[in-house]
Amino acid sequence: MNAEILCIGTELLLGNVVNTNATYLSQQLARLGISVYHHSVVGDNAQRLEDALRIAFQRADLVITTGGLGPTYDDLSKETIANYFHRPLVLHQPSLDNLHAFYASRARKITPNNEKQAYQPEGAIVFTNHSGTAPGAAIEDNGKVAIMLPGPPREVKLMFEREVLPYLQKFSNHIIVSRDLQLFGIGESQVETLLKELMMQSTNPTLAPYAKEGEVNLRITASAASAEEGYAMMEPLMEPINQVVGKYIYGIDVPDLQTALVTYLLEHHITVSAAESCTGGLVSKSITDIAGCSDIYPGGVCSYSNEMKMKWLNVQTSTLETHGAVSEETALEMAQGIRFATGSDLAVSTTGIAGPGGGSAEKPVGLVYVAVVGENYQHVEKLNISYGEQTTRAMIRQRAAKNALYQLLQAAKVISQTD
Amino acid sequence: MNAEILCIGTELLLGNVVNTNATYLSQQLARLGISVYHHSVVGDNAQRLEDALRIAFQRADLVITTGGLGPTYDDLSKETIANYFHRPLVLHQPSLDNLHAFYASRARKITPNNEKQAYQPEGAIVFTNHSGTAPGAAIEDNGKVAIMLPGPPREVKLMFEREVLPYLQKFSNHIIVSRDLQLFGIGESQVETLLKELMMQSTNPTLAPYAKEGEVNLRITASAASAEEGYAMMEPLMEPINQVVGKYIYGIDVPDLQTALVTYLLEHHITVSAAESCTGGLVSKSITDIAGCSDIYPGGVCSYSNEMKMKWLNVQTSTLETHGAVSEETALEMAQGIRFATGSDLAVSTTGIAGPGGGSAEKPVGLVYVAVVGENYQHVEKLNISYGEQTTRAMIRQRAAKNALYQLLQAAKVISQTD
Repeated sequence: MNAEILCIGTELLLGNVVNTNATYLSQQLARLGISVYHHSVVGDNAQRLEDALRIAFQRADLVITTGGLGPTYDDLSKETIANYFHRPLVLHQPSLDNLHAFYASRARKITPNNEKQAYQPEGAIVFTNHSGTAPGAAIEDNGKVAIMLPGPPREVKLMFEREVLPYLQKFSNHIIVSRDLQLFGIGESQVETLLKELMMQSTNPTLAPYAKEGEVNLRITASAASAEEGYAMMEPLMEPINQVVGKYIYGIDVPDLQTALVTYLLEHHITVSAAESCTGGLVSKSITDIAGCSDIYPGGVCSYSNEMKMKWLNVQTSTLETHGAVSEETALEMAQGIRFATGSDLAVSTTGIAGPGGGSAEKPVGLVYVAVVGENYQHVEKLNISYGEQTTRAMIRQRAAKNALYQLLQAAKVISQTD
Repeated sequence: MNAEILCIGTELLLGNVVNTNATYLSQQLARLGISVYHHSVVGDNAQRLEDALRIAFQRADLVITTGGLGPTYDDLSKETIANYFHRPLVLHQPSLDNLHAFYASRARKITPNNEKQAYQPEGAIVFTNHSGTAPGAAIEDNGKVAIMLPGPPREVKLMFEREVLPYLQKFSNHIIVSRDLQLFGIGESQVETLLKELMMQSTNPTLAPYAKEGEVNLRITASAASAEEGYAMMEPLMEPINQVVGKYIYGIDVPDLQTALVTYLLEHHITVSAAESCTGGLVSKSITDIAGCSDIYPGGVCSYSNEMKMKWLNVQTSTLETHGAVSEETALEMAQGIRFATGSDLAVSTTGIAGPGGGSAEKPVGLVYVAVVGENYQHVEKLNISYGEQTTRAMIRQRAAKNALYQLLQAAKVISQTD
């Protein structure tokens, strides 16, 4: 079975909204082993939607649409698709009951416009909307399947997971499983160069690197009759991958560096704290992204001014005068200062020039020092962050913060192994 | 002239990459007054690309492709499109020179594979790639125009701005201008309900609200012969909009709350600081997102543990014992504490339950206090942040941080007007 995703909405064509629905549905269909060969987007226009639908069914067995199920005059999807299949719209009583319950719970009155959402193509399978008012539906006709979903990404996800996924299982005879190796400290193109031969040789499982906000995600994807079989097929690849890029791998199937770090710290009962200058709170924000972090993170400071570096972190005036705020020496004193203030096992600091102003020949924009200290641990990393002329303040800060998280993780591994 | 955006890449169909290129190009074409009626995505497959191209040119005058211009075997766009127009690929010497310079500057050797990128369809207009190796190109043929761009979003943006935009001007006889009113403290659907009649009446300019990470962007868009004329057409809408939602508007044509805040603080020489518990550094991170913030932001602390709330902020043990860390009283003491420590004009604090754990009947997940204090200013906001069952830790933290920025801006306006 192969599928096309057809997203409906003028806001997509005006560039007001990014089409994350197409991405999400593609991921989900890949997991089911259903090939997606096309995405299409059309506006809220009946004729163009009908044409797009016809083209889609010429090349796909399954067409999933998103959008255009709302109550207003420009929501045309259901009418147009029902018409395409020559099905009248008929009242779906459970949907009407749901609508009444929805409005009653909000003490709002239902309008005839709203009631339109309870009408469905005759013979359709109706999907409940768990977070909005527009139900979804599936029509099966002559070997072709149309699935209509609402537009808001949250409604799409919830309806897909709870209603559509169980429905689609019957069309799937194999599944796609993947494993994500997370790398830090190496670029996507470098990973590709180092693993080129292995990537070319591997067809099932496949091997592909993806750049992701300063990290690289190396994805192994297998197509198999069962998840177990799929994961077993990946095993022979692990050894050659590890030989080439093993030292950059910080985690497998973890979403990001902060999750890997906080998980490790919780497992090993290691507390950390952060003193930030150029990252301005991003390291602290990243650590506290993860629920449960309060057991390993008492807190941190953003010492943006020199005064606060001295006051909170006991950075010496002489250090700032001799070496400047952006220096290895200041970074070390900041880390020592925050560790002393919080009593944490490990502490990290960042100080650098995030730009766009403030750089000099000696200390250019993108120069950042990251220091990590512990009782018997000390490490300073000097970074020159540059992605050419596209380098932005946000990129420098993000890369510096990721490096701080990575250095903390490395330090935690060292001290937990020597304990 | 109407256009179709045709993005090429199997990674899009697998859901590994979000199609931000289609969004970006749609926005750019809207500005030029070129209507986009379709987006399409196909994989790296010559036959399906050729079919998609044929369909695209049946319904559009201009087709812009992205992707498939790289050096590897599955980069087929240029060959397929040249073939579609019956044009042979010929060596484009300036592109070859650029390629050699690119590799020389990186001390890398050029391979025959790479040289393939210097070949272009005969008679094509070639666009320089300012951040990668693959040049773009345009083919004009019989009233139809094909524009080929690379895949990486950064390369697309730079090439579009510097090369394609000047080229496309000749096809544009009117432009689209828009003005973004930024609202905080009101939901998208509420804005829509309040402005429904005005929205229905307005066809040029149009009026549309967009939800954006806890804020609402109300966009007025006019199509006119000149930018001046377009902006003048918007004027009559401002009065009725202000009457209905004026109190929620915090800025016009500013990208976000932190930019509005830091800009206002810099203009009025007001310094601020932040003491964060549940937002964990996100307020500090947001303020320091903006270049130049060091003039108004000495720093802040993330006092995640009670101990650090007492140590850094002088929150009283009795306050924590009597009212708890998540309380109006603690929020106020935190704000007063950070203002005292930094000597800032205004100070903000956040304390709350970001979840998913840690909630109780009395203090549920989503309960957050935001306090702002100044010399003669004091305000505490109690928030109950909930988006129903989809509410995440990230959403609660983000909404709380935005509220903190908004309360700071409100306070800054009050104190600057009473000074």
